[in-house]
Amino acid sequence: MTAAASSQPFDDIRRLVSTMPGPDTDAAAAVRQRERSLTKPVGSLGRLEELAEWLAAWQGKPQPSVDRPLVCVFAASHGVAERGVSAYPASVNRQMLDNFAAGGAAINQICAALGLGFKVFDLALDLPTKDIAADAAMDEKSCVATMAFGMEALAGGTDLLGVGEMGIGNTTIAAAIYAALYGGPIETWVGRGTGVDDEGLRRKVSVVAAALDRHRGHLDDPLDILRRLGGRDIAAMAGAILAARLQRVPVILDGYVATAAAAILHALDARALDHCVSGHVSAEGAHGEVLKRLNKTPLLNLGMRLGEGSGAALAMGLVKTAAACHRDMATFEQAGVSRKVATI
Amino acid sequence: MTAAASSQPFDDIRRLVSTMPGPDTDAAAAVRQRERSLTKPVGSLGRLEELAEWLAAWQGKPQPSVDRPLVCVFAASHGVAERGVSAYPASVNRQMLDNFAAGGAAINQICAALGLGFKVFDLALDLPTKDIAADAAMDEKSCVATMAFGMEALAGGTDLLGVGEMGIGNTTIAAAIYAALYGGPIETWVGRGTGVDDEGLRRKVSVVAAALDRHRGHLDDPLDILRRLGGRDIAAMAGAILAARLQRVPVILDGYVATAAAAILHALDARALDHCVSGHVSAEGAHGEVLKRLNKTPLLNLGMRLGEGSGAALAMGLVKTAAACHRDMATFEQAGVSRKVATI
Repeated sequence: MTAAASSQPFDDIRRLVSTMPGPDTDAAAAVRQRERSLTKPVGSLGRLEELAEWLAAWQGKPQPSVDRPLVCVFAASHGVAERGVSAYPASVNRQMLDNFAAGGAAINQICAALGLGFKVFDLALDLPTKDIAADAAMDEKSCVATMAFGMEALAGGTDLLGVGEMGIGNTTIAAAIYAALYGGPIETWVGRGTGVDDEGLRRKVSVVAAALDRHRGHLDDPLDILRRLGGRDIAAMAGAILAARLQRVPVILDGYVATAAAAILHALDARALDHCVSGHVSAEGAHGEVLKRLNKTPLLNLGMRLGEGSGAALAMGLVKTAAACHRDMATFEQAGVSRKVATI
Repeated sequence: MTAAASSQPFDDIRRLVSTMPGPDTDAAAAVRQRERSLTKPVGSLGRLEELAEWLAAWQGKPQPSVDRPLVCVFAASHGVAERGVSAYPASVNRQMLDNFAAGGAAINQICAALGLGFKVFDLALDLPTKDIAADAAMDEKSCVATMAFGMEALAGGTDLLGVGEMGIGNTTIAAAIYAALYGGPIETWVGRGTGVDDEGLRRKVSVVAAALDRHRGHLDDPLDILRRLGGRDIAAMAGAILAARLQRVPVILDGYVATAAAAILHALDARALDHCVSGHVSAEGAHGEVLKRLNKTPLLNLGMRLGEGSGAALAMGLVKTAAACHRDMATFEQAGVSRKVATI
């Protein structure tokens, strides 16, 4: 192996990370100013007001919009699924893709109810990545190619991106990434996923332990963690989140697995998730603990643990509403409503 | 005053409370059974699944619907507003009613974004109730008449009712009701409402103290608390919540003030709110503490404190989505998706 040659693809990613734009503070200030003129006590819409400001800062425009919200679900197959880490067989991957296409999954109903666009990315579903307990999931080139494919999420145009996934075995993948990034007892990062029993949970823990053991000494670089322990879903989501930043599209993160992609970017650069809001805290495993490390307060806490972008999509309904309030509410002047009295 | 005669109107309310139907357990069981057949791990939609079951139980039908969701805002004027307990003048009441009618308020945007019906009830806005620190807000007959007017919320037909309010001074009213119902230091129940300063907050506390003092010895009956300390908004909301129960319409409660109406009913009968879900926990005062006493876990916690039914309406977007998931998701059989493996 020639270290110099193999490090090139990751260098492209690092270069993109280094060019990430910051927030548009003028746009954010414009939103704050307009908020003060709208017919409600200042701050009374709580996080809805924060969301309007956040949209403006990261869309880079003083009048934020959520006119083309899009939920992207990245579907991948994981070699580690062969080790019985899931309550469902790996054949479910393809079946669920068909279910998405036929409009039968939960995410289809949520997107329809809330007026969100929906797109599924098939990440070579019939070619599982390698079993992380025995090998690196991907080589560097394939990892970067998958990230680039994830960047296509932005290709159709959107002003708010929801990032989610589907892939039997991928809560094991996410647990391995968290354990590699954050250390500590492996048990703390592993959850029951689609619903494994105690025996299955023990198996997940031991598979993650075996994976960390197998790749020990090669887990210092977050991008190495991604290619060795990650799946294509995680890599593609990382690409999508990064591309959104570069193209000034705010992102709503889904739950436990999607956040693993975000955590990789955060480990590369602590500012890399400033354009992201956590849609919900999942009931899965240590998601709440991960969000604390990423400094994210989730919008929703509904005990969900489905994936498919479902938590992100529900939260996007809130963000859409926040943008509508900011854009369409009357000002005190327009409505002829008296302002707060000076002295009371 | 003839005690026997004046107790008659309240007796009508008590009779209605005594005839409240319970949950339809067959409908709830049907929902649970269908949930198990849908293409997702059981329980993975968390509270969305609970909401589907709750809708069925209280609509009394095995296939719950949210086809005609309606947000009702009850607007009232409070004599106590003259005591400078709000950051806004009482003239805002009529101005905000005009703003609702013109579509300029936050609640208009939320309802439009989420596809919710919206209705405002003008509860004799030009005739404020009496100042509770000096007198009873209403006599018994007028209190019951207002409750009956609130019951009209159901008249147009709806399958999910959101209950909210608007009225300068009504966080003082709600604080007085909580203090009367639950006791303890008055300060714990009083918040800043639309945003009073420290001086205004002290004034609110002393007004509530004066009101409790004025009505001491007459605050054992929740309905007496309602007529003496409540406003027409609180009375009408109590009527609407009760009517919804009788007509099998589930209710989403808004925040701090709307919950005071619910708390009156709960004090009459601890089962009276079983058909209600708390839409959100408000940033106002002791709302979280009140919800604990009512045994309600709010759907949302977004730091909102606007009123207008805004928190309830946002939550109704979630309930609508929950119903859509339950109704429209494919079953494992329909989608040809493999079920959970028996042994793993």
